[in-house]
Amino acid sequence: MRIGITGTGSYIPSLITKNEDFLEHNFFEVDGSSFEYQNDVIIEKFKTITGIQERRYAKPEFNTSDLGHLAAERAIVDAKIDKESLDYIIFAHNFGDVSHGKIQGDTLPSLATRVKHKLGIKNTGCVAYDMLFGCPGWLEGVIQAHAFIKSGIAKKCLVIGGETLSRVVDEHDRDSMIYSDGAGAAVIEAQENNGEILSHITATHANGEAYYLYFDKTNDQEGCTNTRYIKMHGRKIYEFACTHVPKAMKDCLDKSGVPIERVKKIFIHQANEKMDEAIVSRFYGLYGMEMPSDIMPMIIDTMGNNSVATIPTLLDQVRKGELPEHSLKKEDVVIFASVGAGMNINAIVYQV
Amino acid sequence: MRIGITGTGSYIPSLITKNEDFLEHNFFEVDGSSFEYQNDVIIEKFKTITGIQERRYAKPEFNTSDLGHLAAERAIVDAKIDKESLDYIIFAHNFGDVSHGKIQGDTLPSLATRVKHKLGIKNTGCVAYDMLFGCPGWLEGVIQAHAFIKSGIAKKCLVIGGETLSRVVDEHDRDSMIYSDGAGAAVIEAQENNGEILSHITATHANGEAYYLYFDKTNDQEGCTNTRYIKMHGRKIYEFACTHVPKAMKDCLDKSGVPIERVKKIFIHQANEKMDEAIVSRFYGLYGMEMPSDIMPMIIDTMGNNSVATIPTLLDQVRKGELPEHSLKKEDVVIFASVGAGMNINAIVYQV
Repeated sequence: MRIGITGTGSYIPSLITKNEDFLEHNFFEVDGSSFEYQNDVIIEKFKTITGIQERRYAKPEFNTSDLGHLAAERAIVDAKIDKESLDYIIFAHNFGDVSHGKIQGDTLPSLATRVKHKLGIKNTGCVAYDMLFGCPGWLEGVIQAHAFIKSGIAKKCLVIGGETLSRVVDEHDRDSMIYSDGAGAAVIEAQENNGEILSHITATHANGEAYYLYFDKTNDQEGCTNTRYIKMHGRKIYEFACTHVPKAMKDCLDKSGVPIERVKKIFIHQANEKMDEAIVSRFYGLYGMEMPSDIMPMIIDTMGNNSVATIPTLLDQVRKGELPEHSLKKEDVVIFASVGAGMNINAIVYQV
Repeated sequence: MRIGITGTGSYIPSLITKNEDFLEHNFFEVDGSSFEYQNDVIIEKFKTITGIQERRYAKPEFNTSDLGHLAAERAIVDAKIDKESLDYIIFAHNFGDVSHGKIQGDTLPSLATRVKHKLGIKNTGCVAYDMLFGCPGWLEGVIQAHAFIKSGIAKKCLVIGGETLSRVVDEHDRDSMIYSDGAGAAVIEAQENNGEILSHITATHANGEAYYLYFDKTNDQEGCTNTRYIKMHGRKIYEFACTHVPKAMKDCLDKSGVPIERVKKIFIHQANEKMDEAIVSRFYGLYGMEMPSDIMPMIIDTMGNNSVATIPTLLDQVRKGELPEHSLKKEDVVIFASVGAGMNINAIVYQV
């Protein structure tokens, strides 16, 4: 029996915010000082580094669990399974349901329970829990599902990654332009003629790196000090990711026994285009190779970074032929890799 | 190899709040109306039902992750393991680090990462994640650790349950008297001469029951409508728990193949003394038996309900001889059982 992905789904929020929509923002440095450039220069520089031109935000009436539910519904249809046969619903997120205009995240009940409720699943044996693991949360959920199936306690698992980062960004921080909303999901099952997780690897770097992504007050010195937002040490994260992720990907590939020449696609967490290119380029460098063209599907230009949702959304779009330059066929080997708050890194080598 | 608990630890917060400290509170019904009784009557009735006389709150400078860290340190010492040998740190909670006087929960980075950081663990292979599963979260973390060890991806796991519910209660809701703060932890390992998880069971009831515990505004109609607190439909939860938990415990025990006569202790989530007694009594009733005396250690009278922390704290106290009427010896069979937000129910049959 092969443990693999039998269905995917995603939900792309409908509200588009373009880079030029940030032209009137008052951006400050962390210490409250102003930038030496005007916003048009800041935005142009931002676009060059991250590749982001626009991003999607959820409609005010939708919360993270709603996006997750819509992605989950599609994954269940795609997998052609009876929803009542699910043994697990694993929901990876980091902030809970943050209603539009509010600052508190709501995780009572868990987002996984909310999705199960909305799906109308009656089978009480379907265990619904939430998992917090930074941006690599969805991939880690897949690794957990794999372990549950392997250990014999589950046969079918639904793994969801959803986030509404637009609700936890500081509008006075230029990094706010990176973040976006979305959800993706996949059904993981053991089947004879299935895709298969060949190897996986996970690391948590929690010494000096633990607070590279953190929750803190606005950069606007006159703003409310009681509200906290997603914050990051971008430069440090960039260096951390370029140092550790290529090595983790290599360790994972070597563990699988698959030669690098067989790798057809790399689905990497869409955090920042330049960083992702640097990671994949260095990964190939570890094998003394140049990075092949078309190896790395990217949708960050129109989607932004929606954390746990980037990989399942990207995978769903490629599987469903929505990215014409990228396709997958039976037996293709792909690598999934992610890095984010924790600082966590994980990777999966997968045969389609 | 037996997969079981090799060490436990707990942290009891130092601030004591007695029932009489609530005498001056302005309690309201959910609709804002007043109660027909004075607070002394409300408190007396509360004590009769829940068994709670006083509860512990964390000092203002401590957050949930700090309590979890202190419990974790003790569990590692008790298990006599090298902290660097841990493969997983699983932190079960529901609200993140809610700083004293603030309303936002902070989960960036995860509480598991914070604990790993404080423990100074350098091994990046030690994966740290948070898990949200209502009050049964700690027990579910043990079930997940068991699955990881069984599937071959881990040998040693640290499972922490910590919560500072005092920071998410509505002072105008009499149910606020139930909740408290604390943390407990255990190390789960595969060893030859170990205790052993004989069977486990988990259920998520997410239809009509999904929102029996929920996050909502204060009962004080003049209070801030932007802040939300832990809220519950107490009567419904009571009925739900008495209906479903005894059956889940029986299913779990029957699955283990252990006759009920061998069960020495039942460690049940300390939610409410009357409810816990009703559950255990009905459980024995399913076998046509009376509930034995001394079967159920209880510390709710002085601890209150600190959610995920109740079972590991209770277990730690019994293992360390802090409850003179309760002791465990090698080969004793015990049942762990919990119920809470989700609505989730789980149970483990364990041989010491």
